[in-house]
Amino acid sequence: MRMIKVGVLGASGKMGAQTCLAVQDAADCELVAQLGRGDDLAELTKAGAQVAVDLTRPEAVMTNLQWCIENGIHAVVGTTGWDEERLATLRSWLDAAPGVGVLIAPNFSIGAMLMMQFAAKAARFYESVEIIELHHPDKVDAPSGTARRTAELVAAARQEAGSVPIPDSTTDELDGARGAQIEGIRVHGVRLRGLIAHQEVLFGNEGEMLTIRHDSMSRVSFMAGVLLGVRRIVDTPGLTVGLEHFMDLS
Amino acid sequence: MRMIKVGVLGASGKMGAQTCLAVQDAADCELVAQLGRGDDLAELTKAGAQVAVDLTRPEAVMTNLQWCIENGIHAVVGTTGWDEERLATLRSWLDAAPGVGVLIAPNFSIGAMLMMQFAAKAARFYESVEIIELHHPDKVDAPSGTARRTAELVAAARQEAGSVPIPDSTTDELDGARGAQIEGIRVHGVRLRGLIAHQEVLFGNEGEMLTIRHDSMSRVSFMAGVLLGVRRIVDTPGLTVGLEHFMDLS
Amino acid sequence: MRMIKVGVLGASGKMGAQTCLAVQDAADCELVAQLGRGDDLAELTKAGAQVAVDLTRPEAVMTNLQWCIENGIHAVVGTTGWDEERLATLRSWLDAAPGVGVLIAPNFSIGAMLMMQFAAKAARFYESVEIIELHHPDKVDAPSGTARRTAELVAAARQEAGSVPIPDSTTDELDGARGAQIEGIRVHGVRLRGLIAHQEVLFGNEGEMLTIRHDSMSRVSFMAGVLLGVRRIVDTPGLTVGLEHFMDLS
Amino acid sequence: MRMIKVGVLGASGKMGAQTCLAVQDAADCELVAQLGRGDDLAELTKAGAQVAVDLTRPEAVMTNLQWCIENGIHAVVGTTGWDEERLATLRSWLDAAPGVGVLIAPNFSIGAMLMMQFAAKAARFYESVEIIELHHPDKVDAPSGTARRTAELVAAARQEAGSVPIPDSTTDELDGARGAQIEGIRVHGVRLRGLIAHQEVLFGNEGEMLTIRHDSMSRVSFMAGVLLGVRRIVDTPGLTVGLEHFMDLS
Repeated sequence: MRMIKVGVLGASGKMGAQTCLAVQDAADCELVAQLGRGDDLAELTKAGAQVAVDLTRPEAVMTNLQWCIENGIHAVVGTTGWDEERLATLRSWLDAAPGVGVLIAPNFSIGAMLMMQFAAKAARFYESVEIIELHHPDKVDAPSGTARRTAELVAAARQEAGSVPIPDSTTDELDGARGAQIEGIRVHGVRLRGLIAHQEVLFGNEGEMLTIRHDSMSRVSFMAGVLLGVRRIVDTPGLTVGLEHFMDLS
Repeated sequence: MRMIKVGVLGASGKMGAQTCLAVQDAADCELVAQLGRGDDLAELTKAGAQVAVDLTRPEAVMTNLQWCIENGIHAVVGTTGWDEERLATLRSWLDAAPGVGVLIAPNFSIGAMLMMQFAAKAARFYESVEIIELHHPDKVDAPSGTARRTAELVAAARQEAGSVPIPDSTTDELDGARGAQIEGIRVHGVRLRGLIAHQEVLFGNEGEMLTIRHDSMSRVSFMAGVLLGVRRIVDTPGLTVGLEHFMDLS
Repeated sequence: MRMIKVGVLGASGKMGAQTCLAVQDAADCELVAQLGRGDDLAELTKAGAQVAVDLTRPEAVMTNLQWCIENGIHAVVGTTGWDEERLATLRSWLDAAPGVGVLIAPNFSIGAMLMMQFAAKAARFYESVEIIELHHPDKVDAPSGTARRTAELVAAARQEAGSVPIPDSTTDELDGARGAQIEGIRVHGVRLRGLIAHQEVLFGNEGEMLTIRHDSMSRVSFMAGVLLGVRRIVDTPGLTVGLEHFMDLS
Repeated sequence: MRMIKVGVLGASGKMGAQTCLAVQDAADCELVAQLGRGDDLAELTKAGAQVAVDLTRPEAVMTNLQWCIENGIHAVVGTTGWDEERLATLRSWLDAAPGVGVLIAPNFSIGAMLMMQFAAKAARFYESVEIIELHHPDKVDAPSGTARRTAELVAAARQEAGSVPIPDSTTDELDGARGAQIEGIRVHGVRLRGLIAHQEVLFGNEGEMLTIRHDSMSRVSFMAGVLLGVRRIVDTPGLTVGLEHFMDLS
């Protein structure tokens, strides 16, 4: 079995600690470095890391990635907040480092990826679609980022297919009853003690419905996605944005 | 077996026609009169009706009921739009006709009644509660009347129990994402082709959730409620508001 | 505010430790004793405990209860395995100790109690009913105890109401496809990684369905039931079997 | 717009009648022939039919198809009961008629196809999977054909991916509680008045679950699949088995 030497950046955070455990448990991975804030990135090269998993923050990640790419270390990145400018900078660094791969994966949940991909594929076959996301009541934003992303994917698929507008005869609405709109898709956010992170995408035609639901209960569930990223990035030079590209779904 | 002679007012409407069929099919009921708009109420007495099922409209129902009560005919009433004034008038008529019973049942769905009663009973045990109602996209109002009524019952039960406010940390909301508020209860209305009339009441505490869901697919499902009303009103003098009082739930 | 002095028996087990935390957190309770295996029950009286919460094992519980009753300490008991003989013994001890109360609560989940009580109440209104219980794949028994108990309650309610047999035209069944039967009620057990402990009771009539679902995700959720038992047993002399009797549901 | 001339075989059956309506309503189709039992297939050629939709029975379909293929008429076939021998015969006929296409679609439900395809794609990412199918109580077979087919597809995908066995610690099972097994996949069949035809595929990993549910409420919902078949078969010579091949899912 091929062994992959992995270093974790942001190893003392919750996701970082979980990732260290997951790498240690994986039969084909070896945890060679755990770096926290202030630690020297050179520990990665000293330890012979082939892949760095970056679970730090948007303000630290670019410095980390530049160093990794220059030193020929592949990276799997879980931070959010990527825009075109940052991605362009990354691409330019990667152009200068043939053979090095970087995966940007703002969502490591394989189940959430499947839900979104399936929703996008189902979209053009249905007249109606709505999204319900359900989370614990300590969440500050509504709707969730996953719901927003799902709505965008569904809306794009409908537009590409030339779908007619979603039927809705509501004329007498109590403010907010029909949810928020994201690119024409209605999204409802439920907040309930006892929930963790859940989402349903409901599709409907005359006489039939299709529902895709994902329930995410713990950080552990992201580890399959992190390891998938680690295993695939060593053979995928250049920039990959989105874990779905490593899932061979089509 | 006791046979109950039943007349149907509004017999040519959808609910009326269904009710005529249901009365005919019931082993302990006999359909003795079917009246439409303009028909003479005296047909009820001529036919010996003991119970009139009124499925007409708010503007016709008071005249019908006054006549029924004066003629000693019990009534089961499915129209909506009842306020205190109308109910007071009804009560005064019934005071003058001891032995006559009238049931006002704006909702004949036994399942919807159960959902609402159970929700009211569960309310004081839970920190969080939200309501999702789901209907076909031709519905013009959102949220549904059943969702509004459920929210009122749940809010009243919480107030009576002295429940603390429902937790919600949302500070960053896309307009409408968190639904409408009815007496402090969040209500979400989904509109989807393929749906008929459905509702979920979700309750949550740390570590557990209770969900009560009702699915209503056809008018046929109201007939059990109509027949329950017919069977019970003959022995229940005076005014009864709400089918739940005939369901022996407590 | 009245303060209740509480001792916990079996304090070092998982449920016991959780209960100690819950009693400490409750504003109206004081944790005065935590006993493990081999500890002297006299610590309860020394500490002035008014209520003992017994989370030990069937083989220890009778000795504990005899001692508590003789010493005028109320008890809230979470062990299972109660039969008529044991309950009769308990009753005889309690007869000799007027004013002392014992609650036997094999299930401390308020939500599960609500599900079962609601299911029992709904049963007579429906033609069809089935139960689906869903648990983690490390569970050794199928169906769950809660599913069995729910089936028994539903079957009893149907029998009392004189319900006709549940319709089922299955003639061509792959072995096991239609689930297990408990007193005529079909029960299905799902085992899936990611699940904790969940149950759905499905009721159906022509044109409508009612679903009651309970999701139990953590031991924390039992604490509300334990505390309810503690608060009520001090004013409820004699034997009470089942937490539902303290829930004022009817 | 291209107009497709369509003839319906078995036009007096329920599916046939519905198909005639759907073809008439479709802007790009023209209903040119409706044949019942005993009608002459030559009506198809007289009417200039380009596509025949065969909704007859297994004992009639081979004769119909042979005639259609010989006369250069494409066919969309909804009958079940296809084995390798029959398919081989069809292929031999089609070899002799280049340009003619036949679609065998035992299931015209686009939603059911999506559910099965998505389930097959998700299978390799999950440790656990079970299927719950829910139908009206007049159904004679359990589990349903769709559930069997889904289980086969999921099992094949798991085998191809080298998945380890599904975890299940059940040692104390009431007969039938854990459902039927189809190629190692547990399948549960619920029968409830009020249901029509529904299925859930549940996938689980540590800390997350994915659920795909399809609800089929009326025959109308099959018409989108029939029309998709009609539109695509005119440009797809040879034999196609399964509507999914016309859904461009990958």
